[in-house]
Amino acid sequence: MAGSTLGTLFSVTTWGESHGKGIGVVIDGCPAGLTLTESDIQAYLNRRKPGQSRFTTPRREEDAVEILSGVFKGRTTGTPISLMIRNTSQRSNDYSEIASYYRPGHADYTYDCKYGFRDYTGGGRSSGRETAGRVAAGAVAAKILSELGITVTAYTKAIGPVSISYDRFDLLQMEENAVNMPDSAAAKLAEAYLDDCRSRQDSCGGIVECVIRGMPAGIGEPCFEKLSANLAKAVCSIGAVKGFEIGDGFEAAKANGSANNDFFYKKKDGTIGKKTNHAGGILGGISDGSDILFRAAFKPTPSISSNQQTVNTSGENIVVSVRGRHDPIIVPRAVVVVECMAALTTLDMLMISMTSRLDRIKDFFGQ
Amino acid sequence: MAGSTLGTLFSVTTWGESHGKGIGVVIDGCPAGLTLTESDIQAYLNRRKPGQSRFTTPRREEDAVEILSGVFKGRTTGTPISLMIRNTSQRSNDYSEIASYYRPGHADYTYDCKYGFRDYTGGGRSSGRETAGRVAAGAVAAKILSELGITVTAYTKAIGPVSISYDRFDLLQMEENAVNMPDSAAAKLAEAYLDDCRSRQDSCGGIVECVIRGMPAGIGEPCFEKLSANLAKAVCSIGAVKGFEIGDGFEAAKANGSANNDFFYKKKDGTIGKKTNHAGGILGGISDGSDILFRAAFKPTPSISSNQQTVNTSGENIVVSVRGRHDPIIVPRAVVVVECMAALTTLDMLMISMTSRLDRIKDFFGQ
Amino acid sequence: MAGSTLGTLFSVTTWGESHGKGIGVVIDGCPAGLTLTESDIQAYLNRRKPGQSRFTTPRREEDAVEILSGVFKGRTTGTPISLMIRNTSQRSNDYSEIASYYRPGHADYTYDCKYGFRDYTGGGRSSGRETAGRVAAGAVAAKILSELGITVTAYTKAIGPVSISYDRFDLLQMEENAVNMPDSAAAKLAEAYLDDCRSRQDSCGGIVECVIRGMPAGIGEPCFEKLSANLAKAVCSIGAVKGFEIGDGFEAAKANGSANNDFFYKKKDGTIGKKTNHAGGILGGISDGSDILFRAAFKPTPSISSNQQTVNTSGENIVVSVRGRHDPIIVPRAVVVVECMAALTTLDMLMISMTSRLDRIKDFFGQ
Amino acid sequence: MAGSTLGTLFSVTTWGESHGKGIGVVIDGCPAGLTLTESDIQAYLNRRKPGQSRFTTPRREEDAVEILSGVFKGRTTGTPISLMIRNTSQRSNDYSEIASYYRPGHADYTYDCKYGFRDYTGGGRSSGRETAGRVAAGAVAAKILSELGITVTAYTKAIGPVSISYDRFDLLQMEENAVNMPDSAAAKLAEAYLDDCRSRQDSCGGIVECVIRGMPAGIGEPCFEKLSANLAKAVCSIGAVKGFEIGDGFEAAKANGSANNDFFYKKKDGTIGKKTNHAGGILGGISDGSDILFRAAFKPTPSISSNQQTVNTSGENIVVSVRGRHDPIIVPRAVVVVECMAALTTLDMLMISMTSRLDRIKDFFGQ
Repeated sequence: MAGSTLGTLFSVTTWGESHGKGIGVVIDGCPAGLTLTESDIQAYLNRRKPGQSRFTTPRREEDAVEILSGVFKGRTTGTPISLMIRNTSQRSNDYSEIASYYRPGHADYTYDCKYGFRDYTGGGRSSGRETAGRVAAGAVAAKILSELGITVTAYTKAIGPVSISYDRFDLLQMEENAVNMPDSAAAKLAEAYLDDCRSRQDSCGGIVECVIRGMPAGIGEPCFEKLSANLAKAVCSIGAVKGFEIGDGFEAAKANGSANNDFFYKKKDGTIGKKTNHAGGILGGISDGSDILFRAAFKPTPSISSNQQTVNTSGENIVVSVRGRHDPIIVPRAVVVVECMAALTTLDMLMISMTSRLDRIKDFFGQ
Repeated sequence: MAGSTLGTLFSVTTWGESHGKGIGVVIDGCPAGLTLTESDIQAYLNRRKPGQSRFTTPRREEDAVEILSGVFKGRTTGTPISLMIRNTSQRSNDYSEIASYYRPGHADYTYDCKYGFRDYTGGGRSSGRETAGRVAAGAVAAKILSELGITVTAYTKAIGPVSISYDRFDLLQMEENAVNMPDSAAAKLAEAYLDDCRSRQDSCGGIVECVIRGMPAGIGEPCFEKLSANLAKAVCSIGAVKGFEIGDGFEAAKANGSANNDFFYKKKDGTIGKKTNHAGGILGGISDGSDILFRAAFKPTPSISSNQQTVNTSGENIVVSVRGRHDPIIVPRAVVVVECMAALTTLDMLMISMTSRLDRIKDFFGQ
Repeated sequence: MAGSTLGTLFSVTTWGESHGKGIGVVIDGCPAGLTLTESDIQAYLNRRKPGQSRFTTPRREEDAVEILSGVFKGRTTGTPISLMIRNTSQRSNDYSEIASYYRPGHADYTYDCKYGFRDYTGGGRSSGRETAGRVAAGAVAAKILSELGITVTAYTKAIGPVSISYDRFDLLQMEENAVNMPDSAAAKLAEAYLDDCRSRQDSCGGIVECVIRGMPAGIGEPCFEKLSANLAKAVCSIGAVKGFEIGDGFEAAKANGSANNDFFYKKKDGTIGKKTNHAGGILGGISDGSDILFRAAFKPTPSISSNQQTVNTSGENIVVSVRGRHDPIIVPRAVVVVECMAALTTLDMLMISMTSRLDRIKDFFGQ
Repeated sequence: MAGSTLGTLFSVTTWGESHGKGIGVVIDGCPAGLTLTESDIQAYLNRRKPGQSRFTTPRREEDAVEILSGVFKGRTTGTPISLMIRNTSQRSNDYSEIASYYRPGHADYTYDCKYGFRDYTGGGRSSGRETAGRVAAGAVAAKILSELGITVTAYTKAIGPVSISYDRFDLLQMEENAVNMPDSAAAKLAEAYLDDCRSRQDSCGGIVECVIRGMPAGIGEPCFEKLSANLAKAVCSIGAVKGFEIGDGFEAAKANGSANNDFFYKKKDGTIGKKTNHAGGILGGISDGSDILFRAAFKPTPSISSNQQTVNTSGENIVVSVRGRHDPIIVPRAVVVVECMAALTTLDMLMISMTSRLDRIKDFFGQ
């Protein structure tokens, strides 16, 4: 089935494998008239590039994006924008061994069950490298959102047992540490924890948090295409995500209604606001005008070099150690991926919402 | 936008408001040849019916389903199955007051922002009553799944601070208490807690857990239509859900790879199994043949009769007490809704997966 | 598969069989704020009602539509509009015989091949009665279009060998004859021809033409969702349609470019017009601001009472005479169906086109 | 909107402009296990290549396709197949003049209306060159169909006033003349006619006919996703198509039911056949097991070098002569495009049809 396309009006189709010729994405439905250059996109790709710190793999992928279509004289034409990133750093021999067995925690076994065989070089399509296409497209969505006054910002909230403190929260600090935490003190603890993981040939999980600011109220389509539901899908479609929550999330399950309800009030400018934001900016699946806040739980990197039991493709029990260049944690490089999935979803739903009211449609067409 | 349709091959479109003429659903793409009667569907609807215990509203909705099309001589014909449940217990006067203000925690404000006005009687389309259509359709999906050897079972995992113990887990006990908990001891504590909430004119949240058994390996479509991603969307499209996790979920974010990876092994029957199931039955977005396990966090019922601050439609700050017949907790009646959303999603993805391999397509068409 | 849903933003899902409990449609994505009553819809349904002339079956279907949801205090709420027409005139015994054989020109055989069995009463889902749902939904689409200054008008262009003359074309005449021809002289000839067909126990085909006026330029989405392509699909999805053409259609295949190209010119009001309209109002799949003109070829009614050879469900050659109440021609009652399919398609594409340009999206959101 | 994606399970997304960096397509949902090389695809692309006869433009496009993803060790993996054809023969200066005016019969004006500006080099996205992506994808679909015993064959039926005679019909002759006509005598007349057109600086239209053989009965999804409706859409999405008909098409509109109905009979092998095929292989929108036969009407090439009136982008009336390298007729090169659109549609609907019957789904999953 066509599982590599996301979105209805602003739609993206990604393609490519870890060790094939490249990775790419076609953006279909991008509004005409956006100024767009390769450097707009490259800036986002650079944020997920490996080899940037001691916690990311030393592979030197260049990830240089090329715009193949849809842009004329520096502006989008409204026709499909094809983006390609040639793979340059494949060393397929690193992976020849894993053709013969199923790595625990990886999709090797399920791909074989589904397709009958698999591209075993570097995980093929199930590699995290697949997200480069999402990020390239997300950069375009984010640029459009910014022209509409909307920003999407993700950051590392937790790494293993270490979590940021909102008392020390400072987004600028995020760029000053290797783990994208907006809290330098927590970042130091996290880095120490990661060093410890690595010394034990182990990996760990973490949490990414994302905030969308400037979102107008009224976005999201009941009852199945709720904004929250589509954010959940978009985020849970990222390979290693095992959980999603919006607003207070699982904490809300322990709360009382009197504490969880956000009271409305009249703001000084006459508009309506909420005194708290337990809801995370969404009521009934529709944006309420306050910040949209959600989190994604990432499992630990499954590739670890300590010994693990598994089965080979002949069905025999064996013990393996997954070698290769792997990050001990997925989260820091996934921050921009979460941000981009949120941007893609938000923009698509924003465009869809333009047809909710007949009076606005009539205005649009000058009637 | 068309937000009330879910699914690609097995597709459902729901309609109806809390206090309109009725609630319904059209199932499109149901395979031909299933024996189906209204009682198959009624059995599921009865599980979400209000008025069954002291924790559910005393409204006596009959929720009697009528099959309007798509079934001939007791079997599905392959054409759309239209199901309708006439509303019989509307008392619109209960709700006339809320037309003038925005209830905290409800979708009143966001519907007004989106559509310019709203059906304020009983929440209209944003009412929990909307889920009756999902359950009616889910009953049909579940019946097909059972013919394929697949069962979907949900239950209450937690109510406020009270959680089941897996040591005492017994699905049969679920039907013997008012809160659908598969642990009688926890159920008693939960009931006491709910009595306390009610005495304080308050409500509380909870968690529903769901297990899918008998699922073949290989179901789910990378990279955006992962089985996990679609379960996340389906579950997060239920009104009060604020969080979703699969397998170890947010716990995986704190774990190490060595503990989180599930080791494969050869089972006595020669097939491949997993020694643990931290992944919740899904690897790379594709089912791995083990049980699929996920959870949904529900916020507390937003309708509470204690005083709350809010704003009226004239933009003035006011204090309100939401009267009417409301459950102090959403979870027990939502158990069957979660089950049905899982069934709908699972069946659709199962049907989609039939085209993954050319050899199987050739077999199917006798080539 | 979900084949009974049409449209992306303004989406309709039809259901129901000829001799089941009823026929219906769910409209999802209707903009909020449209004033809508059952009589708006009934007026369209009455146009396809049988029993209106000697060329339509004497069955007296009431086809009274009921709005079940999506309208509150006389206006659409933006949530799904469920419409139902109860069947009242079924006489299943008329059809018991055809359960045993395959009627030539009907879908009996293909339904059996596809689904393994079929609802043989009155053709079940393959009956022309299925179009009642399309017309009910189309009436709503047409009402919205009219608020946007767009009208959709279909009429009978040809019946068997008799065709209207554009020299005598007068839309008002369409309502004054039994065959919906906008040319009274041609209508008389057509009626005489139909009387002759009937006397021979035969039927005949015809052509419906449709014009869409007031359409703004710029509607249609290259390269697959062209306005012309979607009109073609919508029209060819009507049971008996065997051909579709837009503008000069098959005549264009014989023409030279110098004659077929429409020259642009500056109109007195300063806007751009075309001196001719061979293109039928669409260039490159996008509306050009002139009238959109297309035609649909309908085959003869397949049910005829003269003797025909066929095969029964046991695979034996037999001779049959299809009895029952059948129109000798499909076209007059199909006029409103064509009109409604055009309205549904046009409105959906109009709504989709709102997101083509970034500057307009920014205006919409006040940026 | 996402208008460049076609298909549900076997889905293609095309991109690229006439004079940009290249043209491409992403095939999503291709079943795993198909042996596929670039030469499989190149063979189809070569059939639409310009410069092959004196009736096609002398541009020497190489149209060399590159497989960028989705194939591993010579077989499709089930993941997206990205195909790219680099543009090599752009001479943008040929087109600089047309930036300032609207060519009659082209999409210049409608693109400007829709998007606010346009890529005017060679028509940009509205160029016939866009069809290279369709053909590349169609080659893959056709290869799968051939493994299922299904062939799709298109040919030129008519050029201007010259039509093939079915008495002299011989598919092999199609490859021996410059106009792809399966009738050498007609081809000679057609070539003479085209020479005459060219000498008058004019162009002409024509008709492509297509036959699908080996199609099993039961394919097509009532009521909107009829096989005929989707073929109509696919074919009418080709730039210059103005008409579509299936079986007898517009002739059926003049026929009587007694002549138009195809009688069923028992074949010698015990299966059911039809004595005639006026229906073109489709009844009720579902394939009936006989050949599927349809036609597409193409308008004349709009680019002609004789003088034409039009308007420039400043809104002034001017006279232009469209220079450049243009075919005097679209049809011969469009033959393979029609074939590919039919293959894409047929395969997608074939895959979708696998879920029509519960008994077959149970067989598939071994229940």
